Amino acid sequence: MARVVVDVMPKPEILDPQGKAVLGALPRLGFEGVTDVRQGKRFELEVEGEVTDEMLASVEKMAETLLSNPVIENFAVYVETEAASEVAE
Amino acid sequence: MARVVVDVMPKPEILDPQGKAVLGALPRLGFEGVTDVRQGKRFELEVEGEVTDEMLASVEKMAETLLSNPVIENFAVYVETEAASEVAE
Repeated sequence: MARVVVDVMPKPEILDPQGKAVLGALPRLGFEGVTDVRQGKRFELEVEGEVTDEMLASVEKMAETLLSNPVIENFAVYVETEAASEVAE
Repeated sequence: MARVVVDVMPKPEILDPQGKAVLGALPRLGFEGVTDVRQGKRFELEVEGEVTDEMLASVEKMAETLLSNPVIENFAVYVETEAASEVAE
């Protein structure tokens, strides 16, 4: 079992109201030093067996057709290594 | 200018209807070999100057108080290196 991650982010030229809302909230909460925030999506896909080039190509296709809107979003596909495999608290 | 990334994912024991919807859509679109999908959020924070330990601690605090709901979500904070700095198409 392996994990493939797809990160989907709004393109730089696209307005990102969610990110702007976070950016506006930070000073009110006493946080300083952050000049911009962009909010996107992260998908973690568990795939059967090893991650072959064929499977990666298939995930690229999923990212393009289902997980992102290529008009307004960019995406990145990568295999998550064991060492970094947990989003832990 | 440096970029700090915060990944926020639903905890493993928490139902993830968005991820389940994606998982259900994949076979209908002809994609096979994916056994589970989890959907979370990705925040890209641009910070002034170098990323100090103090700034990282501050971002951890932001993640805990504003960017995630610690009851149902885990988060990970890391500095994005130049090499991997673009979510490109």
